[in-house]
Amino acid sequence: MTFRTGNILSIATVALLALLPLLLGAQRARDLSIPFRGEPGPLNAITDVAGVAVGHATLIEGEGGLVVGEGPVRTGVTAILPQGLTYGPFFAAWASLNGNGELTGTHWIEESGFLEEPILLTNTHSVGAVADASIAWRRANNYHGEAPGTHGWASLPVVGETWDGRLNDIHGRHVGDKAVFSALDSATGGPVPEGNVGGGTGMVCHRFKGGIGTSSRVVEGGYTVGVLVQTNYGQREDLTIAGQSVGLKITDLMPVMSGLEPAQEGNSIIVIIATDAPLLSRQLKRLASRATVGLAHVGGYGANSSGDLYLAFSTERPQEQTDGTYTTQFLPNDALTGIFKAVAHATEEAIVNALVAAETMTGINGNTVYALPHDRIRALFETE
Amino acid sequence: MTFRTGNILSIATVALLALLPLLLGAQRARDLSIPFRGEPGPLNAITDVAGVAVGHATLIEGEGGLVVGEGPVRTGVTAILPQGLTYGPFFAAWASLNGNGELTGTHWIEESGFLEEPILLTNTHSVGAVADASIAWRRANNYHGEAPGTHGWASLPVVGETWDGRLNDIHGRHVGDKAVFSALDSATGGPVPEGNVGGGTGMVCHRFKGGIGTSSRVVEGGYTVGVLVQTNYGQREDLTIAGQSVGLKITDLMPVMSGLEPAQEGNSIIVIIATDAPLLSRQLKRLASRATVGLAHVGGYGANSSGDLYLAFSTERPQEQTDGTYTTQFLPNDALTGIFKAVAHATEEAIVNALVAAETMTGINGNTVYALPHDRIRALFETE
Amino acid sequence: MTFRTGNILSIATVALLALLPLLLGAQRARDLSIPFRGEPGPLNAITDVAGVAVGHATLIEGEGGLVVGEGPVRTGVTAILPQGLTYGPFFAAWASLNGNGELTGTHWIEESGFLEEPILLTNTHSVGAVADASIAWRRANNYHGEAPGTHGWASLPVVGETWDGRLNDIHGRHVGDKAVFSALDSATGGPVPEGNVGGGTGMVCHRFKGGIGTSSRVVEGGYTVGVLVQTNYGQREDLTIAGQSVGLKITDLMPVMSGLEPAQEGNSIIVIIATDAPLLSRQLKRLASRATVGLAHVGGYGANSSGDLYLAFSTERPQEQTDGTYTTQFLPNDALTGIFKAVAHATEEAIVNALVAAETMTGINGNTVYALPHDRIRALFETE
Amino acid sequence: MTFRTGNILSIATVALLALLPLLLGAQRARDLSIPFRGEPGPLNAITDVAGVAVGHATLIEGEGGLVVGEGPVRTGVTAILPQGLTYGPFFAAWASLNGNGELTGTHWIEESGFLEEPILLTNTHSVGAVADASIAWRRANNYHGEAPGTHGWASLPVVGETWDGRLNDIHGRHVGDKAVFSALDSATGGPVPEGNVGGGTGMVCHRFKGGIGTSSRVVEGGYTVGVLVQTNYGQREDLTIAGQSVGLKITDLMPVMSGLEPAQEGNSIIVIIATDAPLLSRQLKRLASRATVGLAHVGGYGANSSGDLYLAFSTERPQEQTDGTYTTQFLPNDALTGIFKAVAHATEEAIVNALVAAETMTGINGNTVYALPHDRIRALFETE
Repeated sequence: MTFRTGNILSIATVALLALLPLLLGAQRARDLSIPFRGEPGPLNAITDVAGVAVGHATLIEGEGGLVVGEGPVRTGVTAILPQGLTYGPFFAAWASLNGNGELTGTHWIEESGFLEEPILLTNTHSVGAVADASIAWRRANNYHGEAPGTHGWASLPVVGETWDGRLNDIHGRHVGDKAVFSALDSATGGPVPEGNVGGGTGMVCHRFKGGIGTSSRVVEGGYTVGVLVQTNYGQREDLTIAGQSVGLKITDLMPVMSGLEPAQEGNSIIVIIATDAPLLSRQLKRLASRATVGLAHVGGYGANSSGDLYLAFSTERPQEQTDGTYTTQFLPNDALTGIFKAVAHATEEAIVNALVAAETMTGINGNTVYALPHDRIRALFETE
Repeated sequence: MTFRTGNILSIATVALLALLPLLLGAQRARDLSIPFRGEPGPLNAITDVAGVAVGHATLIEGEGGLVVGEGPVRTGVTAILPQGLTYGPFFAAWASLNGNGELTGTHWIEESGFLEEPILLTNTHSVGAVADASIAWRRANNYHGEAPGTHGWASLPVVGETWDGRLNDIHGRHVGDKAVFSALDSATGGPVPEGNVGGGTGMVCHRFKGGIGTSSRVVEGGYTVGVLVQTNYGQREDLTIAGQSVGLKITDLMPVMSGLEPAQEGNSIIVIIATDAPLLSRQLKRLASRATVGLAHVGGYGANSSGDLYLAFSTERPQEQTDGTYTTQFLPNDALTGIFKAVAHATEEAIVNALVAAETMTGINGNTVYALPHDRIRALFETE
Repeated sequence: MTFRTGNILSIATVALLALLPLLLGAQRARDLSIPFRGEPGPLNAITDVAGVAVGHATLIEGEGGLVVGEGPVRTGVTAILPQGLTYGPFFAAWASLNGNGELTGTHWIEESGFLEEPILLTNTHSVGAVADASIAWRRANNYHGEAPGTHGWASLPVVGETWDGRLNDIHGRHVGDKAVFSALDSATGGPVPEGNVGGGTGMVCHRFKGGIGTSSRVVEGGYTVGVLVQTNYGQREDLTIAGQSVGLKITDLMPVMSGLEPAQEGNSIIVIIATDAPLLSRQLKRLASRATVGLAHVGGYGANSSGDLYLAFSTERPQEQTDGTYTTQFLPNDALTGIFKAVAHATEEAIVNALVAAETMTGINGNTVYALPHDRIRALFETE
Repeated sequence: MTFRTGNILSIATVALLALLPLLLGAQRARDLSIPFRGEPGPLNAITDVAGVAVGHATLIEGEGGLVVGEGPVRTGVTAILPQGLTYGPFFAAWASLNGNGELTGTHWIEESGFLEEPILLTNTHSVGAVADASIAWRRANNYHGEAPGTHGWASLPVVGETWDGRLNDIHGRHVGDKAVFSALDSATGGPVPEGNVGGGTGMVCHRFKGGIGTSSRVVEGGYTVGVLVQTNYGQREDLTIAGQSVGLKITDLMPVMSGLEPAQEGNSIIVIIATDAPLLSRQLKRLASRATVGLAHVGGYGANSSGDLYLAFSTERPQEQTDGTYTTQFLPNDALTGIFKAVAHATEEAIVNALVAAETMTGINGNTVYALPHDRIRALFETE
């Protein structure tokens, strides 16, 4: 099993990575002259929100016919830590357009208004293994500040998924502690690898190769909104980029599937929204629900088979007072409209970034899903 | 007070009305060469769903300076009856993108899964009066089939609203029994008047004149989805029609407001969704939530000040059995994706229809809101 | 029409009123030796939460046969103002056990997390009229601090109801501006009249005479939780007081109804929860949902015909900062368990207080609903 | 590791088991003369609902000091299958009083209105492993009727939990495929073992030994409602049985805990509700929410640390028609009140049954939790 993780990279290497797109040619949506609304942050990534750390463990191994338990493997784990190893709790909320999917931990996020665990993304059938490993990782790292070996705590892991069975041996139980620890331990700020990485490794989006994408917006007051998506949804005909009906214009490059492709499975998207704007959980629920607006702009409808689940958190933690109460700052509701737009715009661009970054992949049984053809996209927008 | 209602029109006149757009020139979005996805029904209106009846009472009176209680009046009431005077109950559900508004009766719709009252739309400050009148109308018409004069029943009226205070004496309490009875009594199938009518009379949408709009789609299996909107939301810059950034291209024709315009109020949309597809209430909630997709396509984000509230119902009623139980038919969930798209598409077109139908209006204090300029819109799409 | 309101009473009279129960004999549950858990505040009323003001307008007129529009009238309005005429916004949330009822304004309370209007309780068919009057009252009193005559605002009134048609000419439209203004203008701190007053005038609870009740609890940290209920729910057999199956022991004194009594209507309870504990809206939703626990202790199940709707608010308002943001204090979630219990205990006692305070009433067509017999209740608990 | 499962028992043995309580003395609440409301089914168990199968895998091994990963082990898995190996989908819904817990799979249950996977209960930190095993079991058994080896499906397992760390090596990852397969494969109708079995093995309830309990009610129309609980909530002082404040009367027999007991963790209850009444998902949500009423009767308040999560399903499946639509029977809403009561009553009795069945247990570090003393309980009720 090959682990491709960022944790073996030095800081200098990370800095160099940020330049790679320039060195290797256009790899993000804006490099293809696609116009977007709003002002992105420096990295145009969720990590523009100070403190947010992202790590990927990418599992790619084997070729040819599917042998359950052996491979081929095209999957992984993506970790998002609101403030690295610094525990919150962080005000948080979730929302959904269509719930044909899993995002564990939402009962307590909803009840408490707080996120207390790392966010982990993987394939549908590895949710259990990743949740299990998340607890082990919290224990190993005393994430909540417990003394080592403390027994009396409970963890309700936060794990989202989309279905990568078109390319991956999804029944093969290939994701375990090693991948989860790797994703979490390698989580860092800075540029975020996109496309066929981490939880997004084997995903398909609008019948092109999908995966992980990210984007950000800077809003009034200097606050930043960052979005990270794991995209695995959509029909070709509905693909819309910056108002252009791309899916009606590029009808070739459809996936080559060796056998019976499932009609219903895997049309999902997970959207993680981070912000340094001081917001209460009810306000973050409002942010989360605006992911649908960005999704709609690209051509998502919340198909019946889709798990379109969103999670939003603020990195601004409340302050504990000496009397045991907390104080917190928050924006008034009438300051939120611009942030709602930012969520929509960053979600839209993050999805397109995922499509642009993902490369053609061949997986189980020789199934092949093609990358969005950069030249044809660029041609559409440069002639505009 | 002038009442403009359809109930004085003969059937022949109604049929003639359907031809009026052809006689008078383009008055609907498709007449301006705007492309839309999906196949509309014969009338491209909510009334394509068999049995659905719509009535408007339009209150336009007075000009000049605002005198609260006197006018000018630019408001009204729109009534939607799922099956005319035939009571249901009808499977129903509601959803919301942003709840800065009112739609009464949702507690029982949510709890029971059924719609049991007529749907009425009006201005924000007439919700109480309209709810009050709704009960009187039910009593006068024995809508639930009670014997005349029956005492032992309770009504939980269903009344939605948007804020027409830019043009209307909204504090003036001009809507009462007469308007509500008129809207309900005149409700009929056939073509639905759009624009400055009924509850939509004084509304503003993307800083153009808004109001009532409608559209429909025919989906697989021969079912029809119909949508009626009361539009009063949106910034100009976000107006998007069929993928074109119209709001960035037409920046003139902004409202002329005599005094301090409220920054926050009135950015709302009510979406009513009807279908003859046999669906359970949980499925209708899924339909309702897809109104956001259509709204997003035109440029809605669910601004903080917006009451974006949706209500969906099926005209297919369950059948009572001799043993007191009911039976019902319903579509499997995996047959819903096309219907979800139909809701999005019809919502999008209904909004644009409202914009196309609404005419320039001058209201209180000479405030003027301009109609969408048909020629410039047509030019945008005919040169495509 | 006789208006019985507190607003004509001097402060001295109010103080005297507080002594009345002692002068007139037992009128509250504790005076009948019924044991309750937890420590009440000085008044054992919602007004123990500093600033909360309650006012009633009680409409009792006429006797004999029902003539719709004439009477007999047995209804009213109860107003709860979180801080009198001092506007919030106040953190707030609502919850429901069974939604066969109306509580308007909840879309915005849910979306914003704030209560911005007075709370008004009345009968089911007067909700519209009361909502209408609520806007007029806000305008007359510039409740939100607007300059007099300001036009550009919208109001989403908060009005709850239960069904008093067993005793009241509920179709007669007897409640209007006068009653609503009277209830609001007379709202005051201090002892709260209970039983056949305000919105509770014509209500029935566990087949005894019900109405308005209130109670409070002081919790750790010195915070107060106050509850006010409008009770109109319940079968006799389920009535349980302090663990005793009272409804199985007192099977006589059933209502005498002249004609066909509605089987399904009117089994509702509205619960209003106030606290000075600094809590966020999500936390207040948790409080609200605990009303079910108190209701269950007295014998409520959320019958199908019941509108069991709850609203909770905190009187501790967030502080606006010079930069336009707000700060607020709040209790950590792990400090809430005691407050949850306080809500349950105060709800339970408020219901019993309503039953104890309400007096036998004869209404339309001579229908008579009997008071809980104090002596028999006292006997049950004194022999314990 | 010792597996105590029912699957090695012959049918004759099962029948014999049903007699065991009579042979061994009182082991259920009614045997202690505790009165309950409503009429139970023949077994007074969730399995009175025809077709419902329950299986337990009980893991008890080791004594003495805690060594994480070695033990002592006091945990397990309980499986509930609506119709054994016969797949649904089954109309279903969930509800919550307090969400400090996990019940996976609820996003799709909520969205679809259906339960499509077995229900599994375990300890908090084994949710992931059990979810993982649930997918493997579905694959091994072709639970959805897929041809063996079919690849193109996704599973969203349904796994609930409570926290058994007072007695169990909860960080030790002792639950895996073997226990999950054992619980599922042994699931059967007939009497349901209660107390220290399956997922309930190490649980604590009102500071007495808790665990699994079950009860049922037969309602009007001959329908049956069955409830199974995994109890791990509650303070002693709040324990109330049939109206008696047992927790205030039995203040000894408190748990003996060797070290620092967690103040906040583990106060949870999972309630599974089955019925053969034909009900739609929205109606089942109404049933689910009534578990709070039964819980309140025994002394539950939904403490902050509590995961009080409920799941209800109907065994009456809709019928597929030749045209691809479905038909279903359902009860009208006004027939539900009696079923709501049945849910409350059966939940109450199931909790008490768990307390009565559970035996004193010593777990990690010699921690001991005592059984409810049968003789003292019987004395309380026999002297009544």
